[in-house]
Amino acid sequence: MFNKDTYVQRRQQLIADVKEGLIVLVGNEPSSMNYKDNEYHFRQDSSFLYFTGLQSPSLVLVIDTAANKTTLFGDNPSIDYIIWTGAVSSVEERAAKAGIEHVQPLSALQHVLSTAQQQKQTIHYLPPYRMDTTVYIAELLGIPYQSVKEKASLPLIKAIIKQRAVKSAEELVQIEEAVNTTAAMHAKAIQLGAPGVTEMYIAGIINGIAVSGGGNLSFPSIVTQNGQYLHNHASNAPLQAGKLLLCDAGAENRMCYAGDLTRTSPVDKTFTTKQKEIYQIVLDAQLAAIAALKPGTLFRDVHTIAAEKLVEGLIQIGLCKGDPKEAVKNDVHTLFFQCGLGHMMGLDVHDMENLGEQNVGYTDQLIKGTTFGWKSLRLGRALEEGFVVTIEPGLYFVPELMDNWYAEKKNEAFINYDKVFAYKDFGGIRIEDDFVITQNGSRLLGNPLPKTIAEIEAMKA
Amino acid sequence: MFNKDTYVQRRQQLIADVKEGLIVLVGNEPSSMNYKDNEYHFRQDSSFLYFTGLQSPSLVLVIDTAANKTTLFGDNPSIDYIIWTGAVSSVEERAAKAGIEHVQPLSALQHVLSTAQQQKQTIHYLPPYRMDTTVYIAELLGIPYQSVKEKASLPLIKAIIKQRAVKSAEELVQIEEAVNTTAAMHAKAIQLGAPGVTEMYIAGIINGIAVSGGGNLSFPSIVTQNGQYLHNHASNAPLQAGKLLLCDAGAENRMCYAGDLTRTSPVDKTFTTKQKEIYQIVLDAQLAAIAALKPGTLFRDVHTIAAEKLVEGLIQIGLCKGDPKEAVKNDVHTLFFQCGLGHMMGLDVHDMENLGEQNVGYTDQLIKGTTFGWKSLRLGRALEEGFVVTIEPGLYFVPELMDNWYAEKKNEAFINYDKVFAYKDFGGIRIEDDFVITQNGSRLLGNPLPKTIAEIEAMKA
Repeated sequence: MFNKDTYVQRRQQLIADVKEGLIVLVGNEPSSMNYKDNEYHFRQDSSFLYFTGLQSPSLVLVIDTAANKTTLFGDNPSIDYIIWTGAVSSVEERAAKAGIEHVQPLSALQHVLSTAQQQKQTIHYLPPYRMDTTVYIAELLGIPYQSVKEKASLPLIKAIIKQRAVKSAEELVQIEEAVNTTAAMHAKAIQLGAPGVTEMYIAGIINGIAVSGGGNLSFPSIVTQNGQYLHNHASNAPLQAGKLLLCDAGAENRMCYAGDLTRTSPVDKTFTTKQKEIYQIVLDAQLAAIAALKPGTLFRDVHTIAAEKLVEGLIQIGLCKGDPKEAVKNDVHTLFFQCGLGHMMGLDVHDMENLGEQNVGYTDQLIKGTTFGWKSLRLGRALEEGFVVTIEPGLYFVPELMDNWYAEKKNEAFINYDKVFAYKDFGGIRIEDDFVITQNGSRLLGNPLPKTIAEIEAMKA
Repeated sequence: MFNKDTYVQRRQQLIADVKEGLIVLVGNEPSSMNYKDNEYHFRQDSSFLYFTGLQSPSLVLVIDTAANKTTLFGDNPSIDYIIWTGAVSSVEERAAKAGIEHVQPLSALQHVLSTAQQQKQTIHYLPPYRMDTTVYIAELLGIPYQSVKEKASLPLIKAIIKQRAVKSAEELVQIEEAVNTTAAMHAKAIQLGAPGVTEMYIAGIINGIAVSGGGNLSFPSIVTQNGQYLHNHASNAPLQAGKLLLCDAGAENRMCYAGDLTRTSPVDKTFTTKQKEIYQIVLDAQLAAIAALKPGTLFRDVHTIAAEKLVEGLIQIGLCKGDPKEAVKNDVHTLFFQCGLGHMMGLDVHDMENLGEQNVGYTDQLIKGTTFGWKSLRLGRALEEGFVVTIEPGLYFVPELMDNWYAEKKNEAFINYDKVFAYKDFGGIRIEDDFVITQNGSRLLGNPLPKTIAEIEAMKA
């Protein structure tokens, strides 16, 4: 964890922003897999982690803004627990590391909250994304679990986003560590890709690299020869000659900062000509988007730049026709590029997604789109120095979508459907890197991972 | 999955055993990690899997025993889902693979259940181990979530244990596949162990082997130089020369059958004399326990045989004194062997643990112990042909426990505390293999993994 001053300072800023009431940050519990005590690896809630640095379960942080008093609620381990799991530091020791002066047992929490309720104090908490947390909050506050989400605090959400969106220098060091582990995962995947090897085999090896890096996966690895499906995970199907291997995977480091990269490589040692054409279009779109990154620019506009560049390329090889800008205005790109150009990244790979995409990626004036394609753009608002974003354009040839559009004669004026149909078995290509917004532009995070056609082929030679 | 006849037959047997009412098996939902859509790898509920073979989320199986009618409740994917995740088979296709003739959407489930409630039919369901399942059942049945667990069906629990406890030949093939992947994990861990390498590095590599095997981990890997703590997981601490590396880890194969092995190896290339002495005592206890396995024998008695053998060895090297049988009667072994000798293994690594340890491992006449040591023995009852069990004795030198016992002068007549204290920094040794009970004894599952001192040292040479 960082020095305790970091956490003290973050909490002071939070008090200044939220201004009144009690702030309650509930840490995560272990998650049961196939029976109660067989647990998935523990993952702390990211906002709890941001304000405490503490990675152990069953802790609740309460900040009394009026009294400027922070208390960590948690229970010390029993001797039975120590025999089974080893000596762990006491709640007092953990609190001290986070610069928290007050400690109480969990059993004291309900009384503190009901007293605050009686005094008509606002109790600020975040919308939970796990049912056990939802029920716990409901029980603490004496409200039905069905109403927990709607009563979450928008002022607290906004205050947390304000801080977490801008990454400090010490956070960037952590993110770069995660990105470098992520790059090692991708280098291995590219090298392992060959006819007959299963997707799952490669997923296993690269997952292992993430854990060996000291942390874990930042999200379930996408390792697929069916890259046209955006979130298709690894299967036990062997890779086929002539196909593309799309790998979208990332590690989080031991402090839970995420990396997130995508590379698409040939299953064979080289790309086919058809694959090279599409690959280069995606790469050009990525480079155009990267060049546009700077403080003040709307990320929505960067997305549009990439979309136009993609359509431009598709026009050049005959899949599309007409004016690229007009085509994008008509959402032609969404036949091939159904998702967003990127998202914020930090303690979550889709940073703060649990706080609401509208709250994180947009503003009160800039509302997230609701139409196909645009509704999947997680980030739209003006970039600021210190934002960390992914840039991940792609071209995805989804047979089901082609058929739907063709049946509706959608955007006929811009699309040569006969040529597009020749790509029904092509798959998908995505290229993704991570950037921090700097004073005048952006900076690539982590050591560069090869991405030109020549570089990718050289890795497989 | 197996041929559909397997599942049809299992469900027919279930109907015959439960006899009346509606049987409701709720499949698992995805589990959120750090925001709703960032999910841990999906793990189906094992009983749902046993009776359907279906590994996709959001399915509920309802068996109407009176009508001998089985219905799979589930929803077909939307086009949006297909674009994101790829074509998946329809609920109808999945039902057909499991030999289920009737399919209905999830929205129809509540009506079916409330109709049954009005008709005063019994609704049998299993005790949930995840809060989202608990709340879902509560909503379906119109009862408070707090009372869901207590209203779970004991007849259903017993009928399911009766079937799942005895493994069929086709199940043993699956378990052996999992055990062989598990053995590959251990061989790698033994070879990787060396001063300076982190526990987490080794955990990552072997976790990768589990996933590459086509399935996943059967439980979070224990990879530790602090083997005295029974469930200590991997840390980022580098291994130290002179220490022991205890690795207790397992894969589940793609059908979710578990393997579970433990090996303890020196961080250096060879064991020290002190380590060899303790290692050989544990190995002798394991061999004695294995020799005692046969149908009709109480597993509790096999545990006692192992405990006596352990104490016998400790007497020989001077840590204990007196008569071994008397010592075990006085629970002397629990200072060094705080847990049980083993457990059932199948679709769960601790098979059916969610159905209750008393129900799974004991009988109405044989009640699980409640005292230290005995309360951790998951299996006590008479073995039957087809049971799959782990045999995993160990000696664990837990400083905190030594201090507690010494302060109470506990079992002074049997323990040479001054000698025991010399093992405060020793660590722990466990050796574990998996067996199926046969007509006359037992059979090791999977290819043998080296376990003698000479074999382990040869693997590191």
